[in-house]
Amino acid sequence: MAKYTIGIDYGTLAGRALLINVDTGEELATSVLEYPHAVMDEQLPSGRKLGSDWALQDPQDYIDVLTFTIPEVIKKSGVDPEDIIGLGIDFTACTVLPTLADGTPLCFLDKYKDEPHAYVKLWKHHAAQDHANRINRIAKETNQEWLDYYGGKISSEWAIPKLWQILEEAPGVYADADRFIEAADWIVWQLCGKEIRNSCCAGYKGMWNKAKGFPSKEFFKALDPRMENVIDEKFSREILPLGTKAGEVNGKFAELTGLKEGTAVAVPIIDAHVFVPAVGITKPGSMLAIMGTSTCHMLLGESEIKVPGISGVVADGILPGLYAYEAGQCCVGDHFQWFIDNCLPKSYFDEAQRLGMNIHQYLRLKCMKKAPGESGLIALDWWNGNRSILVDADLTGVIVGMTLNTRPEDIYRALIEATAFGTRVIIENFRNNGVDIDAFYAAGGISQKDELTMQIYADVINMPIKIADCKEGGALGSAIYGSCAAGKEIGGYDSLYEAAEKLGKVKDKVYTPDPEHVAVYNKLYEEYKILHDYFGTGWNDVMKRLKKLKNEV
Amino acid sequence: MAKYTIGIDYGTLAGRALLINVDTGEELATSVLEYPHAVMDEQLPSGRKLGSDWALQDPQDYIDVLTFTIPEVIKKSGVDPEDIIGLGIDFTACTVLPTLADGTPLCFLDKYKDEPHAYVKLWKHHAAQDHANRINRIAKETNQEWLDYYGGKISSEWAIPKLWQILEEAPGVYADADRFIEAADWIVWQLCGKEIRNSCCAGYKGMWNKAKGFPSKEFFKALDPRMENVIDEKFSREILPLGTKAGEVNGKFAELTGLKEGTAVAVPIIDAHVFVPAVGITKPGSMLAIMGTSTCHMLLGESEIKVPGISGVVADGILPGLYAYEAGQCCVGDHFQWFIDNCLPKSYFDEAQRLGMNIHQYLRLKCMKKAPGESGLIALDWWNGNRSILVDADLTGVIVGMTLNTRPEDIYRALIEATAFGTRVIIENFRNNGVDIDAFYAAGGISQKDELTMQIYADVINMPIKIADCKEGGALGSAIYGSCAAGKEIGGYDSLYEAAEKLGKVKDKVYTPDPEHVAVYNKLYEEYKILHDYFGTGWNDVMKRLKKLKNEV
Repeated sequence: MAKYTIGIDYGTLAGRALLINVDTGEELATSVLEYPHAVMDEQLPSGRKLGSDWALQDPQDYIDVLTFTIPEVIKKSGVDPEDIIGLGIDFTACTVLPTLADGTPLCFLDKYKDEPHAYVKLWKHHAAQDHANRINRIAKETNQEWLDYYGGKISSEWAIPKLWQILEEAPGVYADADRFIEAADWIVWQLCGKEIRNSCCAGYKGMWNKAKGFPSKEFFKALDPRMENVIDEKFSREILPLGTKAGEVNGKFAELTGLKEGTAVAVPIIDAHVFVPAVGITKPGSMLAIMGTSTCHMLLGESEIKVPGISGVVADGILPGLYAYEAGQCCVGDHFQWFIDNCLPKSYFDEAQRLGMNIHQYLRLKCMKKAPGESGLIALDWWNGNRSILVDADLTGVIVGMTLNTRPEDIYRALIEATAFGTRVIIENFRNNGVDIDAFYAAGGISQKDELTMQIYADVINMPIKIADCKEGGALGSAIYGSCAAGKEIGGYDSLYEAAEKLGKVKDKVYTPDPEHVAVYNKLYEEYKILHDYFGTGWNDVMKRLKKLKNEV
Repeated sequence: MAKYTIGIDYGTLAGRALLINVDTGEELATSVLEYPHAVMDEQLPSGRKLGSDWALQDPQDYIDVLTFTIPEVIKKSGVDPEDIIGLGIDFTACTVLPTLADGTPLCFLDKYKDEPHAYVKLWKHHAAQDHANRINRIAKETNQEWLDYYGGKISSEWAIPKLWQILEEAPGVYADADRFIEAADWIVWQLCGKEIRNSCCAGYKGMWNKAKGFPSKEFFKALDPRMENVIDEKFSREILPLGTKAGEVNGKFAELTGLKEGTAVAVPIIDAHVFVPAVGITKPGSMLAIMGTSTCHMLLGESEIKVPGISGVVADGILPGLYAYEAGQCCVGDHFQWFIDNCLPKSYFDEAQRLGMNIHQYLRLKCMKKAPGESGLIALDWWNGNRSILVDADLTGVIVGMTLNTRPEDIYRALIEATAFGTRVIIENFRNNGVDIDAFYAAGGISQKDELTMQIYADVINMPIKIADCKEGGALGSAIYGSCAAGKEIGGYDSLYEAAEKLGKVKDKVYTPDPEHVAVYNKLYEEYKILHDYFGTGWNDVMKRLKKLKNEV
């Protein structure tokens, strides 16, 4: 009898479910629910206004995803719930909420319905930047070694800055919060009736290190004396490794979803990291870039090396038994869309319309007619700051080389190339620090639909690029974790390695570097690197001064 | 009885005549003739193809301007030719042609009708760049002092590079050319039957210095032994100062134009320099910027100072008895138009249309809502290279500071500001080299219609800006020179100073610096200067390397 698992991918705006055959990998059904409350970044449903850089969600939406999408994929696929052996979950992170000891979100309480700090703080809630800055400063002053595992800096997106903001701005919420928990873990808690903490979120967003645990009480006390015991009071020191079972679907959620009570639920994972098994990566040295509005880079390694400027290195962060490195670029698809919205002349829209093409197609067609180096342009892709390897949100974009003959496609192509050079900087930074990279994979929207960009990347990094072959790659990854939670005995897998090799998928089409392009891009990359260091490492801090001036006027 | 003069302004595409009352300055009539042959930059009328960077004209067009526009302004104004006492002429330069000893252009000869080198080489004929480079190299190697009066470098637009190109590429034309003469001087020769050479063209484009004459025969011999005696063979050592009479209209042209035979004709002047008296400048320290597709800066001085990076300093170059300095920016209006053509999104055109505004108005309106420094951007205005003070055609444009919130008006404003900073670099370079500047005037298209740009300039240079008040400012200037050629005895002026003070005009509206804006722009100028020196003075020659790469692929 065939067995099945379901993966649920919690993104920024919607939850997606995918039901697969655990043996063949066949994708039988998908379902999507857009969160009813979406992202609350201006006001609460009550009308209460939020500050700038806030981004909240309502945890009820996450429950709704379970109760809507799971019944739907069961129904669409016609599969008997008896044969659904496992469930996996991936989630944006650090997306985090305060709850009572029984898991009830504080925002569900009448007294906190109108309190912003009682809601889920979405990963892109950036209002705790000041707290992140203070954490970084104090960590440096007190020589916190753990900081080196995060490229030397943590961001406002992490758990402790978000919690510290609550403590300072809503101490009542802080006091009433028995737990402060990642949404990924919270939804598993709901499903299984058991609080857990996953190694991926804890490692990448919670300062946890498998060998060394959390930072010391002295460190937290130095932030604020009230936070001295924050880990024991609000978090947990028991962290579950990925690839294992977190619990089983309880009676309540069996009833709500149609799943069998006792169905295995996997330890959840972050929505980027989940792509690694979904493309079949199981070995150190293979980098995966998830390319969308921004790009995340995932890389497995045999040892824990302190690489400057990365987002983090976490034991068991993706596959049990290996270290998982993460790096990132803040502005990729966003960058290209900015250009189309703000810089593309009317005549191009008119001509695209005349030819019956959409504007992206038309622009890419014009770009493809240009050879590398032909534009005479070079850009720094810092429209949204730089995550890796400079970890500096105050950096901004640059374009060099315009003449009166420069055309929109020249600039567009230069922006694409700039993001590719940014990726190459990340690759070379890993290599220079002793972390090998010998293969490159891409997933995410850009990898699926933008051949121009993917070819430029292959030429710039001088490596073939394999492409994820699943429309719902996140949910596929989660379904793979679900299959390991179930285990071999009941038809799943005991090894995540085996499951990933069997179920992970890439397309037949591989982007192969063109040696002539590689030669030109090697020269252009040298120019990029000179400008990168000039503007990014303190030779000329003009970007920061311009930002300061902008804020003053 | 009122007396009148006519000014004729020979531009790149058309000749314009203006008839004024010499006493009141009243403008009575204008007339324009677009050159029938326009600019020949792709082929001769015969169909013979021209090389890249060529730009030729047909001298018959210049004659046609006289025979069309002069009768028309006489007729329109109803003035009796008896009362027209003088004629002044300004011309693009170095716009130069080979002729026989009697002034017949070689291109009028049947044998040369199909020979490109026999035609007028327009100022923007840039195909002699290699010759200019060789001249600069040899001049530096042989320590030619005259080079220091031209900012250390001459350009391909000058007379000797153009003539040298003829010698190398069409030695027969060179041999048959008894004279090689500026079109300004040639048209006066036609009118008066007498070959003359004016101090403005000779000084700015012909390497002539009032005190020191031309470069030595040894220098010309070093270029090419055949050119040892080029000045005596093809040019003239007799140079007439501005503000004097060149000759009188002869019988032939009296008949062709309707002017009285014997009407005084002024020593002609370059079409930019002619604006100085047209705005009433007669004193050292007042800079005039003629702002169009590019900008020329004119400045009078009491002494001859070697200022690096300027276009030239010439005794009697504009007003007799004073030194006239020239500097320039290659890309001003061209730069703004490039942006509108290549970078302005469809939505802006749609919105402008909805509001019934033209796109320039709409964009300026949006720019005006922004405060200095608010964009966080800074640009280098080198889309067409840099004339002053770097004298480097291989430099290209830069924009720094883009974010995802950057809007088109931010970039447009940054481009305008960049040209203003470029002007400030020129001003400070003069001051640092001991040439005072205490007042600023503007003429040309941008000064007449672009209040946003003019206010930004006033704020950036921290000086009030007075604006030329004449639609045909070039022709007005020429009419002023015409009044001095006539002299006081017959109703004109003996002194160009007196004529300029009486007839030169500025608008009532003066652009006055806003102290708050000045403070912000002082900070931004510091940033501009750092980037200017970094990209422009050898710290990072990325622009040159990108151009080289572009030419290779």
